[in-house]
Amino acid sequence: MPDTTSHPSAELAEFTAQLAYEDIPPEVLRRTEDLMLDCVASILAGSSARSVQAIAHLADIMGPTSGPSENMVTRKTTSPLFAAMVNAASAHMVEQDDVHNGSVFHPAAVVFPPAIAVAQALGRSGPDLLTACVAGYEAGIRIGEFLGRSHYKVFHTTGTAGALASAVAVGRLLGLDKKQMLNALGSAGTQAAGLWEFLRDGADSKQLHTAKAASNGVSAAYLALDGFTGAQRILEGSQGMAAGMSTDADPSRLTDGLGSRWTVLETSFKFHASCRHTHPAADALQALMHTHGLGADQIASVVAQVHQGAIDVLGPVTHPVTVHQSKFSMGTVLGLIATHGRAGLPEFDAALHDAGIADFRSRVTMELDPEVDAAYPRQWLGKVRVQTTDGRSLAARVDEPKGDPGNTLSRPELEDKALRLGTYRNAATPAEVQALIGRIWGLADTSMVGRLLA
Amino acid sequence: MPDTTSHPSAELAEFTAQLAYEDIPPEVLRRTEDLMLDCVASILAGSSARSVQAIAHLADIMGPTSGPSENMVTRKTTSPLFAAMVNAASAHMVEQDDVHNGSVFHPAAVVFPPAIAVAQALGRSGPDLLTACVAGYEAGIRIGEFLGRSHYKVFHTTGTAGALASAVAVGRLLGLDKKQMLNALGSAGTQAAGLWEFLRDGADSKQLHTAKAASNGVSAAYLALDGFTGAQRILEGSQGMAAGMSTDADPSRLTDGLGSRWTVLETSFKFHASCRHTHPAADALQALMHTHGLGADQIASVVAQVHQGAIDVLGPVTHPVTVHQSKFSMGTVLGLIATHGRAGLPEFDAALHDAGIADFRSRVTMELDPEVDAAYPRQWLGKVRVQTTDGRSLAARVDEPKGDPGNTLSRPELEDKALRLGTYRNAATPAEVQALIGRIWGLADTSMVGRLLA
Repeated sequence: MPDTTSHPSAELAEFTAQLAYEDIPPEVLRRTEDLMLDCVASILAGSSARSVQAIAHLADIMGPTSGPSENMVTRKTTSPLFAAMVNAASAHMVEQDDVHNGSVFHPAAVVFPPAIAVAQALGRSGPDLLTACVAGYEAGIRIGEFLGRSHYKVFHTTGTAGALASAVAVGRLLGLDKKQMLNALGSAGTQAAGLWEFLRDGADSKQLHTAKAASNGVSAAYLALDGFTGAQRILEGSQGMAAGMSTDADPSRLTDGLGSRWTVLETSFKFHASCRHTHPAADALQALMHTHGLGADQIASVVAQVHQGAIDVLGPVTHPVTVHQSKFSMGTVLGLIATHGRAGLPEFDAALHDAGIADFRSRVTMELDPEVDAAYPRQWLGKVRVQTTDGRSLAARVDEPKGDPGNTLSRPELEDKALRLGTYRNAATPAEVQALIGRIWGLADTSMVGRLLA
Repeated sequence: MPDTTSHPSAELAEFTAQLAYEDIPPEVLRRTEDLMLDCVASILAGSSARSVQAIAHLADIMGPTSGPSENMVTRKTTSPLFAAMVNAASAHMVEQDDVHNGSVFHPAAVVFPPAIAVAQALGRSGPDLLTACVAGYEAGIRIGEFLGRSHYKVFHTTGTAGALASAVAVGRLLGLDKKQMLNALGSAGTQAAGLWEFLRDGADSKQLHTAKAASNGVSAAYLALDGFTGAQRILEGSQGMAAGMSTDADPSRLTDGLGSRWTVLETSFKFHASCRHTHPAADALQALMHTHGLGADQIASVVAQVHQGAIDVLGPVTHPVTVHQSKFSMGTVLGLIATHGRAGLPEFDAALHDAGIADFRSRVTMELDPEVDAAYPRQWLGKVRVQTTDGRSLAARVDEPKGDPGNTLSRPELEDKALRLGTYRNAATPAEVQALIGRIWGLADTSMVGRLLA
């Protein structure tokens, strides 16, 4: 029973501070390993990007040039704060990391980098690391759900809720008690930031958001260990996050099913290298083309029937001028699916100057669909209507995109994806990725977490 | 004339990137020196505080243990990012740094620490440093005004606008061009954070807000130099700061009087060691007691007639349990004024366990005053009503508190204040403060900024 001073933030802090490895179901631990592999492979895939390199350069200038934690972008070592910052910057770069549908939150990018960096710094065990990551997921996803759809209209939930998710994961590794954990939430929440405005210009801020969410969480947790205090109701208080950044926050979501509902199992793996909002329509178009045996040249126009959030995020991107921006262009994504049958990293690299893709893009529009919108964000329905060049009107829908919890990836599929991501632009050798896979699959038996890419 | 792609953020970026030392009036430069001395003395005064020490400890763990910039809290050196972070954490600790009334923004704490740290790292001249600080002030204050009163109800403007002010000051020292400066604003704005919720618990977040505003601004500017892009309309865009964090933002304030109106001249020095919202009533009570020759024991009750912002910030603090919290307690501040004739740092240290002060506090109430509220934040009127123990009803008002632009401090007064702050709890010796004063008064003739507390 919560005591009389209990409130949702405090219950969440208590649950995450006291979560025991033994209480976590094996399938949750295995899925956490799956997600960690997916994340580290994403870090490798993003590591050569200009914006990630800029953040790595900042870390080189401002941070220590060696330390106990692994910088997976530079392959050097540094302090946990900068390892978390740089690795998190890279984790979300290629848009291949996981997403939680209900919270529209990308937990992996802001949970694994800080947790791995701090576990390495403190010499923690594999089970300690897994427990910390589960705690980070369970907190971050519930906080994202709590902040709601109104928050996501302007704020990048992965940046905002991400700071608290990172703080919880790191706090667990530091052994924070429930009061310290609540202070860590307070310090993380009062640093929470990230605005969608950058999308309009195709600017680099998304990497900054994950980088700062991860590193701010590290700061918040270490400060809490040192006695630094934070607001006790940073989430639900009258001058807290919801008061400032949401109009539909629901405090009951913060503690929903703690200990019985495992949100780790609810996240989706990404199959397309694009913003998640494009995936349902991409899968629906792929299904439609398969069913009717259509080629790209037989498609006169496509209407992607979407939820409002997709229009908010993707709508401003009408003429993508960077590869990153093209991942937020519904027309580009559908063009790649129609033309190549997939929208992976190499396809996006080639798409920007492909006249055929640009032409297809001009034939794609988005339309708010009441059914899709009502189901969102619980369920990400995909619906498209297609006009063919020979005058047919076709339609298709998918109820659960590939990679979603009910349609998830097997370990062989995950290993294949990790190999493709990890070797993208020669970030790592196939042998290095195989060694990484072995280390992560063996975490439960690891007494001290070392470098994953040694 | 602005070109057709011009907009308020871009105009502000252009002005600050191109501001020339020669174009800044001498009185603005001299006031900037005044403010810098006030700030460094405040850093010294705050340096022994537990929350500041915790942030210094974080910097020791996470940052380099030596570097080109001066950590004025530990008296060691480190990278510019951590010097900015730790010095800014301390600058606002004792609540003796400056405030700009119209924006309810404390510019010094978030402008001088990053500017000094980066000037030291780059070996810039005194005039370069002064120019950068003026640019930071002119940007930060206008951004605070732009964000408006609705923003300040939930967000700590010094934390939010502060990140952009820091970015501009640092960007100027890095020699950013107008496009890079706009990118720096974008990266700073998307990191902008700071919620008032911590006040309810007397938590340590205020130090974190200034620390992170300063260091995030450093990151944003260095990233911009490296080609990292940010939103072009982070302030006024439809998913930017105002869209997410204000309901009364006025874009015209961003460019108001650029080049002719110098906001540096508009900030106020603090005379009491408390939240600025308490100062007008404190001065009015002091005037009333002086006029009528009253002692504290002759006062039965006080009504402080205030603006709504004072009620929002001070209202939750009914029973202060920390020295810091007592600086947000109107009753405590008025009790110190009545009892000791001043509310300085030593008075606050002694107040917490003083039964007489607690008793006086119980006789103080706040009341929303339409005249005071209408004048705010342009003017901070002080009004009090007093009931005396012998049954008299008295009232007093002040139009301009001591330290305000029309009632500012002379250089001897500033030097005296710096000496008191700098030697508080033996942070520095009187000789060190004298040397500091000499270095700052000599900045205009300094070819390379070195350590200020060598």
